[in-house]
Amino acid sequence: MKKILIIGAGLSTSYLIDYLLDNAEKYDWEITVGDISEEMARKKVNGHPRGKAKIFDINDDLESWRSIAYADVVISMLPAHMHHLVAEKCMDLRKPMLTASYVTDQIKSLEEKAIRAKVPIMMELGLDPGLDHMSAMNVINRIKENGGTINSFYSFTGGLVAPESDNNPWNYKFTWNPRNVVLAGSGVSRFIHNGMYKYIPYHRLFDRVLKRKILNLGEFEIYANRDSLKYREIYDLKDVPSIFRGTIRRPGFCKAWNVFVRLGCTEDDYIIENSENLTYRDFINAYLRYEPTMPVEIKLQEYCQNAADPVVFEKLKWLGIFDKRKIGLKNATPAQILQKILEEKWKMDPQDKDLILMQHEFKYTIDNEDKMLVSAMAIEGVDQNQTAMAISVGLPLAITTKLLLTGKINHKGIVMPIHKDIYKPVLTELETFGIHFEEKEYMLG
Amino acid sequence: MKKILIIGAGLSTSYLIDYLLDNAEKYDWEITVGDISEEMARKKVNGHPRGKAKIFDINDDLESWRSIAYADVVISMLPAHMHHLVAEKCMDLRKPMLTASYVTDQIKSLEEKAIRAKVPIMMELGLDPGLDHMSAMNVINRIKENGGTINSFYSFTGGLVAPESDNNPWNYKFTWNPRNVVLAGSGVSRFIHNGMYKYIPYHRLFDRVLKRKILNLGEFEIYANRDSLKYREIYDLKDVPSIFRGTIRRPGFCKAWNVFVRLGCTEDDYIIENSENLTYRDFINAYLRYEPTMPVEIKLQEYCQNAADPVVFEKLKWLGIFDKRKIGLKNATPAQILQKILEEKWKMDPQDKDLILMQHEFKYTIDNEDKMLVSAMAIEGVDQNQTAMAISVGLPLAITTKLLLTGKINHKGIVMPIHKDIYKPVLTELETFGIHFEEKEYMLG
Repeated sequence: MKKILIIGAGLSTSYLIDYLLDNAEKYDWEITVGDISEEMARKKVNGHPRGKAKIFDINDDLESWRSIAYADVVISMLPAHMHHLVAEKCMDLRKPMLTASYVTDQIKSLEEKAIRAKVPIMMELGLDPGLDHMSAMNVINRIKENGGTINSFYSFTGGLVAPESDNNPWNYKFTWNPRNVVLAGSGVSRFIHNGMYKYIPYHRLFDRVLKRKILNLGEFEIYANRDSLKYREIYDLKDVPSIFRGTIRRPGFCKAWNVFVRLGCTEDDYIIENSENLTYRDFINAYLRYEPTMPVEIKLQEYCQNAADPVVFEKLKWLGIFDKRKIGLKNATPAQILQKILEEKWKMDPQDKDLILMQHEFKYTIDNEDKMLVSAMAIEGVDQNQTAMAISVGLPLAITTKLLLTGKINHKGIVMPIHKDIYKPVLTELETFGIHFEEKEYMLG
Repeated sequence: MKKILIIGAGLSTSYLIDYLLDNAEKYDWEITVGDISEEMARKKVNGHPRGKAKIFDINDDLESWRSIAYADVVISMLPAHMHHLVAEKCMDLRKPMLTASYVTDQIKSLEEKAIRAKVPIMMELGLDPGLDHMSAMNVINRIKENGGTINSFYSFTGGLVAPESDNNPWNYKFTWNPRNVVLAGSGVSRFIHNGMYKYIPYHRLFDRVLKRKILNLGEFEIYANRDSLKYREIYDLKDVPSIFRGTIRRPGFCKAWNVFVRLGCTEDDYIIENSENLTYRDFINAYLRYEPTMPVEIKLQEYCQNAADPVVFEKLKWLGIFDKRKIGLKNATPAQILQKILEEKWKMDPQDKDLILMQHEFKYTIDNEDKMLVSAMAIEGVDQNQTAMAISVGLPLAITTKLLLTGKINHKGIVMPIHKDIYKPVLTELETFGIHFEEKEYMLG
């Protein structure tokens, strides 16, 4: 019998845990869910005969050593900054570890230890990062194997609200960590276009959107992700002259969001004085010049051109930013205040479903012909538990765990799912869950 | 005989050293100038019989202890981040210390030690910070003593090129640290207007200028300094509903500078790929969309509205930003590249003179009348050694040193020149050097 330890029983873990429990009998697994809240863990295991729930605190050295020593494989669903604590112990005890999070410098520094321990630290196994790597590498390697040369790689992902639940003027709701949405894009964004490096400072990011139709889901817009360049090395695209990664939103989102960026409301590195007692209206007015004879609405439209567009203005007004309601947050940063305002309006209702979109676009040359291949996928959530986000983060991770436990893969060190023996079986099994990349090919020129 | 140790013999120290040497005979002083370069120190002392030059390295513990122990007072002209090293040693040896730099948290943490040592750490004794405090407090205290209530305090300072040397389209040259000019304003700027806190994010800072005529020197524009709020406490203006501090430039500067801010060229937290081999034109193009059929000039005008103004465009073109000259800086940040471009064009010629401007504006109520008092000052440099900057940084510091050595002042702990016994005699003596605040009073309403 193989023993799986899942650390952390948070929001995004239900689909992962369910998959492993569903397969436990067939593969002879025992699944232990550990969380600082035993109740949370117990809820996720839900009395399954193959499942156990226990208190787990990574800072309790003795207990966490004992739990990890007992396991054959460890899946860390802790907040990203805590993975390295788990990883250190896993390497000491020579246990493979899997997460859905980014390879950080801290994790990277454990590479040698992992190789010496002859076990993998398998990272970036969720949606983005995760499924993006798998589905991109699947096409990249196929084009290369067929003798093609890739000239351009664009890749977009978005977490949105499903069309049938899309009932607000922003065509957007929080389907994931609201704080990350508010801070999205801060810093400079870089990409490369025809061999030229391009930089977009944060305050211009939402000015420079691409437009796309995706599948049969209508129109979307895309803003650049922070670092498109690191994928050149990871995907072995070093000589590809155009690489761009972006985030998908519904049309009009960026033009309206840009008003907050231009005002300065998305900044997170200072405190708004007396934030607790200000009203939403005061908050907006704090970014506008003093002019007591002019309404905040007019001053805003004068200061941020986008706000003068009636479609944008409607979005802003709908959020309640001109209301005289109190913020009620002590010592809050602008981003924290904005998050609070948005959470009231962008929260998912109990019956709402989310939608994950991913699209890769490859331009390549083969047999002296220039072609374009578009590979696109959509996942819709089932309900509030089985969200598209939980499914698409949990399934690739769960399937990779199965591949590892059944001896189908055998990597060492820090591993990302860019290897064929990982992504092929994962993508194949995902098809059985209805997660399918639709490919269309075009001739260029 | 009193012994003065001046640590650091950099650019801004000549006027300070000359003043002290000129007064050395009269007050029986011996002046030692210490620098890591003995030659630099020797040049500044220039063979004066009361002067000595020596190698001084604050990291050489033994020697620096010995030098400080020998002195009666220490003036640190080292880079700001090194003052605390000097201060620690001064406090251990119970020697008063003076600098022209801001009180940092590191310096603040020495307050108790200074009080126990019964000696002062006298900070912010230069121009800005320094003369700004002295001249503002002089008026603030006078208004208060006369029974007035201050309702508004605006204060502006600028380091510019003198009118007779003002021969470029920016009406600006580097008269001080170029790096600080390129990075000026980064972060959020805060002030308070009629009791309302106002915030300007960096990317909007140069959009929001005030216009002023100053003395008989014509028109100027002013952009907000980062933190106007800290002066409320320092100047004891806690109940004053409007406080604003700003930096003075010639009209049109900010509109053109804003193009660089909007592009993202003033950022300093990432490296431009292959910066060494890019041309100036490539650098600008790195911030513009890829569109090989369109010249960089046109793309820039489309992307940054201000650049479409012919007056602004002329300024930009004059800097050579569209040239195909190589940058030649390895691993440079955008700000470093921009600084290099600017230094070629904004450098002071040997015969050029600089100009320091300062203006305070007080609105106050006295005997039920609303009044406004404007206090303004201009200093013009004499030559490249006796710049207005060196004079206005060095003189207040030198005069304060004299006050200390002649027993006229006797403070302990961290001291700023906001006390009457400091600012009164300093301002009075500055008048003899032609540094004079001209006051005009107006009735309001």
